[in-house]
Amino acid sequence: MTLLYEGKAKSVFTSDQEDVLRIEYKDEVTAGNGAKKDKMFGKGRLNNLITSKIFGILAQKGIESHFIEQISDTEQLVKAVDIFPLEVVVRNVAAGSICKRLGFEKGHVFKQPLLELFYKNDDLNDPLITDDHVELLELASKEELVEIKEEALKVNKALSTLMDDMNLILVDYKIEFGITKDGQILLADEISPDTCRIWDKDTKENFDKDVYREDTGSLIDTYETFYKKLEEL
Amino acid sequence: MTLLYEGKAKSVFTSDQEDVLRIEYKDEVTAGNGAKKDKMFGKGRLNNLITSKIFGILAQKGIESHFIEQISDTEQLVKAVDIFPLEVVVRNVAAGSICKRLGFEKGHVFKQPLLELFYKNDDLNDPLITDDHVELLELASKEELVEIKEEALKVNKALSTLMDDMNLILVDYKIEFGITKDGQILLADEISPDTCRIWDKDTKENFDKDVYREDTGSLIDTYETFYKKLEEL
Repeated sequence: MTLLYEGKAKSVFTSDQEDVLRIEYKDEVTAGNGAKKDKMFGKGRLNNLITSKIFGILAQKGIESHFIEQISDTEQLVKAVDIFPLEVVVRNVAAGSICKRLGFEKGHVFKQPLLELFYKNDDLNDPLITDDHVELLELASKEELVEIKEEALKVNKALSTLMDDMNLILVDYKIEFGITKDGQILLADEISPDTCRIWDKDTKENFDKDVYREDTGSLIDTYETFYKKLEEL
Repeated sequence: MTLLYEGKAKSVFTSDQEDVLRIEYKDEVTAGNGAKKDKMFGKGRLNNLITSKIFGILAQKGIESHFIEQISDTEQLVKAVDIFPLEVVVRNVAAGSICKRLGFEKGHVFKQPLLELFYKNDDLNDPLITDDHVELLELASKEELVEIKEEALKVNKALSTLMDDMNLILVDYKIEFGITKDGQILLADEISPDTCRIWDKDTKENFDKDVYREDTGSLIDTYETFYKKLEEL
């Protein structure tokens, strides 16, 4: 099987089926666009289990993704898509970069979900972009962008409800989309504590990568606890 | 007369008439949000003359602004407006920050004018913002923003034609808008080589503040030449 792409947290391989890829979740953890980097035994397994579980729940709620099935502790099969070079971020509560960037206080609840687009480009440090930039850079067509945004906000509703059921708050998350050979736009990449910011409703304790970014706890223990909560649903 | 506001390049005073302000153009020149700073004798006069002339031409083309009249070499009277904390940038050709930010090559001609919004906030370094940010930060209402954008693109047409008549290219520019007590949205601030990027059509030579930013020539001589071209129209 051919390695198609090696990212910071995952590797993507071809499979023995056409239009199906195998994703392997790795134990590497990075922050600050790779500025902080470690290896944490068990992280790949946890993010694979969590993403598989969440994509499964979203499918039940009518949100399709590239996910086909989990095939081992660290691997899943997905539909082959071309990933749009866009990081789609949805924020319900201000935290992280937006506080520094626009002066929002951490914990400020947005009166409506805020969707932001970033250009997936390591050389440029993934800059914030507008719809007009997407068009000029030809990252997606106007119609594709409308669909991507609608889908991202549907994910927000579904995921917020899910977190609420776990006594958690979905603060923000980053998702990616891809397009199949047949032109179907699908939610792709992963949904895990690596890509979401999740707080305990009462204590505001983090259940996400901020424990690693801010050195406030064990990443593995945090992800394990989150996974257990998800399993108990 | 009371000093209402002291900016990097201008001071704003009350006048003896209600709802009329006096703007004094200063000889200070800055770049990089104040990182580079100098005093250049005659700059205030040139930008006052140029802005007065350009606002006059725009008025003839049906684009109203806060400008009332030039009252001395360095002063003009304007209608009192509350300035929206927005820098409205329109780009026809890639140059300056957008090349570094998004990887466009300098000189790349955009297939349509690109309008960008920046949050006027020195503490935050005037960050790029989207329409959604404008709404959440309550910098302008949805309706106001639509009007501001439409007006900014009208200015682009009028100003591009003007520059074309002078054998120049309007590469990009930054404008600001304000609102009167009665709720009229007006083009405000200034339009000068401080706030525009202007190239000679043939030689691509700069007729703007880039000669100062990049240390490639005399700012005063450049602005003087530009003013003469404007006078010769």
